[in-house]
Amino acid sequence: MSELDTLIQLLAKLPGLGPRSARRAALHLIKRRESLMQPLATALHQAAAAVGPCPVCGNLDTSEPCAICRDPERDTGTICVVEDLADLWALERTGAYRGQYHVLGGTLSALDGIGPGELAIDRLIGRLKPGMELILALNATVEGQTTAHYIADRADRAGVRLSRLAQGVPIGGELDYLDEGTLTAALKARRAF
Amino acid sequence: MSELDTLIQLLAKLPGLGPRSARRAALHLIKRRESLMQPLATALHQAAAAVGPCPVCGNLDTSEPCAICRDPERDTGTICVVEDLADLWALERTGAYRGQYHVLGGTLSALDGIGPGELAIDRLIGRLKPGMELILALNATVEGQTTAHYIADRADRAGVRLSRLAQGVPIGGELDYLDEGTLTAALKARRAF
Repeated sequence: MSELDTLIQLLAKLPGLGPRSARRAALHLIKRRESLMQPLATALHQAAAAVGPCPVCGNLDTSEPCAICRDPERDTGTICVVEDLADLWALERTGAYRGQYHVLGGTLSALDGIGPGELAIDRLIGRLKPGMELILALNATVEGQTTAHYIADRADRAGVRLSRLAQGVPIGGELDYLDEGTLTAALKARRAF
Repeated sequence: MSELDTLIQLLAKLPGLGPRSARRAALHLIKRRESLMQPLATALHQAAAAVGPCPVCGNLDTSEPCAICRDPERDTGTICVVEDLADLWALERTGAYRGQYHVLGGTLSALDGIGPGELAIDRLIGRLKPGMELILALNATVEGQTTAHYIADRADRAGVRLSRLAQGVPIGGELDYLDEGTLTAALKARRAF
């Protein structure tokens, strides 16, 4: 197999790229050898070598502990529990949260054989101190909510305040297009106008 | 800027990936450091070093001339002219063509200041021998057809037979959804049943 075919096959493994778009991407790269192809190869090597999980919260960063854990401006009395790094990034992009994080690395799932031991739950319980707030920012799926309940049970004994993200109509959302579950939640959690 | 941000910014420059999917791709890569991230970095380096344009036809390959130009099984009496390498790949995937190619590297465009000198047209004319067939497989756009007419004018003097791809209803195409131009072409080129 030629170098070009190897490259196309590897690019096709990226999420969002299929065989067709991987060919287009390879062509795009070869036409921009100096400006994109070489820098991307170098960036991949460097990121692979430099980036690792934070031993405290599980965030990926080039330093241990990560930049969020080390930031003296951030509130150490609040930990926000997320399933995945992508969720941490999504919350960070809002700029609305200034506390700590804890990345679980997944959710409990009997079907996939993922128990508490496979997730960073013991490490989370070890971080808890009485009076802290623990925000359970898990996905609104069955697995996410099961995991949230399991963590809530164990964290309760540590004397922390538990909270979760509000559920309701998304900004810009049209009622007509929302599912019944979301509408029910939004109705139950209605607030004074 | 961290190694991770650099990687995300470079990935976002690939066609088909935006800022959001570039973040997902970076995350996907970091989770598959050994199986995908390192091999992709290596493949990029190797392809950048090994792959170059064929001096005869303009195809990208690791050898000069390219594998198609060197293949003794392929008909040297037919040259298929395409705009771009992606078009050559598309034709090769059909497996229906066993002649030579010539990649122009674009189309004539007064607006973008692309004249015959910017394309590999002189090199194409130099390859022509009397009795050859020249297939003008250019896109059915204004620029593609302008370029086809320009090449046809010059190739005519070299004593070659000129042809172009058939136009008509695509396989599986529904008449209802086709534009008038395609339908008109299909009607004019109708064949006995």
